[in-house]
Amino acid sequence: MTKTNAGRFFEDYAIGDVITHAVPRTISGGERAMYHALYPARGALYSSDEFARACGLPGSPVDDLVTFHTVFGKTVPDVSLNAVANLGYAEGRWLRPVYPGDTLVSQSEVIGVKQNSNGKSGVVWVRTTGRNQRDEVVLSYVRWVMVRKRDATPAPHTVIPELAAAVAPSDLVVPDGLSFDGYDFDLAGEPHRMRDYAVGEVIDHVDGVTIEEAEHMLATRLWQNTAKVHFDATNRPDGKRLIYGGHVISLARALSFNGLANAQMIVALNAGAHANPCFAGDTVRAWSEVLDTAETAAPGVGAIRLRLVATKGDAGVLRGDDGKYHPDVLLDLDYWALMPV
Amino acid sequence: MTKTNAGRFFEDYAIGDVITHAVPRTISGGERAMYHALYPARGALYSSDEFARACGLPGSPVDDLVTFHTVFGKTVPDVSLNAVANLGYAEGRWLRPVYPGDTLVSQSEVIGVKQNSNGKSGVVWVRTTGRNQRDEVVLSYVRWVMVRKRDATPAPHTVIPELAAAVAPSDLVVPDGLSFDGYDFDLAGEPHRMRDYAVGEVIDHVDGVTIEEAEHMLATRLWQNTAKVHFDATNRPDGKRLIYGGHVISLARALSFNGLANAQMIVALNAGAHANPCFAGDTVRAWSEVLDTAETAAPGVGAIRLRLVATKGDAGVLRGDDGKYHPDVLLDLDYWALMPV
Amino acid sequence: MTKTNAGRFFEDYAIGDVITHAVPRTISGGERAMYHALYPARGALYSSDEFARACGLPGSPVDDLVTFHTVFGKTVPDVSLNAVANLGYAEGRWLRPVYPGDTLVSQSEVIGVKQNSNGKSGVVWVRTTGRNQRDEVVLSYVRWVMVRKRDATPAPHTVIPELAAAVAPSDLVVPDGLSFDGYDFDLAGEPHRMRDYAVGEVIDHVDGVTIEEAEHMLATRLWQNTAKVHFDATNRPDGKRLIYGGHVISLARALSFNGLANAQMIVALNAGAHANPCFAGDTVRAWSEVLDTAETAAPGVGAIRLRLVATKGDAGVLRGDDGKYHPDVLLDLDYWALMPV
Repeated sequence: MTKTNAGRFFEDYAIGDVITHAVPRTISGGERAMYHALYPARGALYSSDEFARACGLPGSPVDDLVTFHTVFGKTVPDVSLNAVANLGYAEGRWLRPVYPGDTLVSQSEVIGVKQNSNGKSGVVWVRTTGRNQRDEVVLSYVRWVMVRKRDATPAPHTVIPELAAAVAPSDLVVPDGLSFDGYDFDLAGEPHRMRDYAVGEVIDHVDGVTIEEAEHMLATRLWQNTAKVHFDATNRPDGKRLIYGGHVISLARALSFNGLANAQMIVALNAGAHANPCFAGDTVRAWSEVLDTAETAAPGVGAIRLRLVATKGDAGVLRGDDGKYHPDVLLDLDYWALMPV
Repeated sequence: MTKTNAGRFFEDYAIGDVITHAVPRTISGGERAMYHALYPARGALYSSDEFARACGLPGSPVDDLVTFHTVFGKTVPDVSLNAVANLGYAEGRWLRPVYPGDTLVSQSEVIGVKQNSNGKSGVVWVRTTGRNQRDEVVLSYVRWVMVRKRDATPAPHTVIPELAAAVAPSDLVVPDGLSFDGYDFDLAGEPHRMRDYAVGEVIDHVDGVTIEEAEHMLATRLWQNTAKVHFDATNRPDGKRLIYGGHVISLARALSFNGLANAQMIVALNAGAHANPCFAGDTVRAWSEVLDTAETAAPGVGAIRLRLVATKGDAGVLRGDDGKYHPDVLLDLDYWALMPV
Repeated sequence: MTKTNAGRFFEDYAIGDVITHAVPRTISGGERAMYHALYPARGALYSSDEFARACGLPGSPVDDLVTFHTVFGKTVPDVSLNAVANLGYAEGRWLRPVYPGDTLVSQSEVIGVKQNSNGKSGVVWVRTTGRNQRDEVVLSYVRWVMVRKRDATPAPHTVIPELAAAVAPSDLVVPDGLSFDGYDFDLAGEPHRMRDYAVGEVIDHVDGVTIEEAEHMLATRLWQNTAKVHFDATNRPDGKRLIYGGHVISLARALSFNGLANAQMIVALNAGAHANPCFAGDTVRAWSEVLDTAETAAPGVGAIRLRLVATKGDAGVLRGDDGKYHPDVLLDLDYWALMPV
């Protein structure tokens, strides 16, 4: 019997299966420091215990994307080791902040399967749930991937889950105690509040960051994501290592500080596409489009829905005339963040 | 209205202006670990809680240069985004150690302005102050930069601050409780005490470190210094990323352990020049010259004034016959450190 | 008098000498996070406080190799600065886990000397002991290195220590309180327990990691190992930086998770050879051979003796027909780990 993990193939997923992902992880101040070294992150709520306390939290949580990457990383050996493509995200909700000292575990339920007409692969939908050491859900999201088949088995009954086009404002969860009533805009870095942003407004985040191999590998390992495409230069004929899509998400989100400094907490992931692959040497830039705004019940706390686009050049257009993503577009992400109203 | 920060221009600074810099930062053991990964730092006081306690401190503070970089990094978006050159430092004093858990904020007061004769730029002097969460000053220093003008506005009244050539020994602040009476020279790494060093003595620190792009970018981001010249390979015609001068300071200071292992705490920055740019691939070496020594009121604690020179080759000379820095000299730093008498 | 450390030469070691190595080091969650960023480490006991508590420990210790590297790093300036080769390890035992907050110091006793027949170098054996802040031994091991002579002094009396070929199972120390009775194999990542492994079984760990200069330098500095061969590209005629052998150990051990996820704690180092040098750009893979298994007195806790081989290619053979290591073999390590029986 082989003792190593060859990953699951399409026929290994059945509707209703619940997979407990391995390797729980305790987060410390070390992960927070690494996050600041890896990304140009300047969000005040994630940088300062004092700022977070002034906003009603017990201290500074780890970046919401640390939570995402940690929960996501655990799913890789079970969900995407034999994945041909990461197709999409939906219904992502951050339900509780994660603090240094918390331990995260991750579980996925298979909620959709659809064999491709070629009979060689299929699409699998899973709902992944991250929990802390008190068994409280901190994050939940749906992700679907195209996975290879191992054998020429019969196609399973097709189940395609119904997924919301976006998380409804009424489903956004604001952390207990959060208040932006005494929000310090000077310390946060910009004066713009939610009402200063217009739906349709586009913000070019100005700065660019050229990525090195060492950086994306440090990041990807930190989340215990061990997909070999990210680490092994002998894995592709061109000798390139594919950069983990989440690295681009974090980079773009951090760059978006310049113009969106007050888009503090990510509370929902509506949709996301890794439009084109990213490689070391690429210089990543970002722009955002305001898609929506909403009120919340928390004092002074609004929600802003943003499209975050990462590019490897100065691509100001998202798609070409053919409707396909511009070849310089790396990421098209649709999310909700909390912002002073 | 644009939402992104284009930085201040020369005409945006007026004498007496006080700028509160954005993004407070809580330091943890993570920043300390990163510092040890980024620089060959071996100072015992910054490496061991036990050693620090034996010297009368409550635990091991973060390296004084972590304090410097953190306070400095915050000033970049407000002070040096449109800077043509970082011209100098003076009157730097570390007034209180920073410990894991402390949160730092940064403020600058404009204390000098002088428009250049070309009318296109000018020099701005600021006194920057870093404070902890108890509003105690941890660091104060003067820095002056050359900044571009945006428009052809009239020149302001010239004010050039009077700055001390060096911090006087009587102005050095020794941390409360510090004592080197029971100092363990074996654990510290070298037997040399202050009286073993002669003014004029030069120490070649022997070792060299070749810098990689990933390293200086990790470091610079860690201090939330987001100046694009450090990160964006498309920013200069030659495709090079300029290494943050503070990275060279930390590298040289860490290298100086070999010969100055007992120069423990930096308490003053008298002057400093980033003599030539540093790029990835450069192999950095360092040498020091003893400029002065002084007693302090603390038990067993002396102060040593050092010139720390970083080179990208084996440059033993500081300046050529023309009085200009040798092209291999990267840094010429003048500081006071505490050392067992 | 020169103030810098030129390192010891062969004639500077005498049987019975005890060297206290400089620079004690306090470990925090930061070092743990860095370890996870540097290596694809997924061992549950080192990743999760909750998992460790379920195994009877007070929390998650730092990886046993963090302990090894920290203790080892301190010895470099005193033992291997003028070493021509690192020849071997023996009788390594981890005697107590190290937790965030612990401070480590390191001491070595010279236990063997043998001048080479060329009169220009000799072999030195030292027994190195790492202790925590309570003066408890956390690690002890023997290492021998070939060191240059400085002068043509007479050869010392040859002493070659008698060393065990392997640590006997009865000498393995299981941490107080450790129990694998309630071990969660799902969270640990694999179902295989000690009795599922047969002596002689070989496991190919599948994955490969291509090493970058920045990564091995960050790692090596983190352990305060300052041997210039690892950092200074001008040090060798070919401009290459030699990768610290311990970096390869950690990389191979982390890769071995895939197939040995339950080989949790390293308790003994029986032998080890750095068979060939490793350089940036090499893609490291690993395979293991089961050498032995043993019971321990702790509930549910067995011990497995493993040969861990790191290669820079797909070398499945350890040695060529000439008995020499295959040129692609980087590491041949023989160790004991604890595993659920």
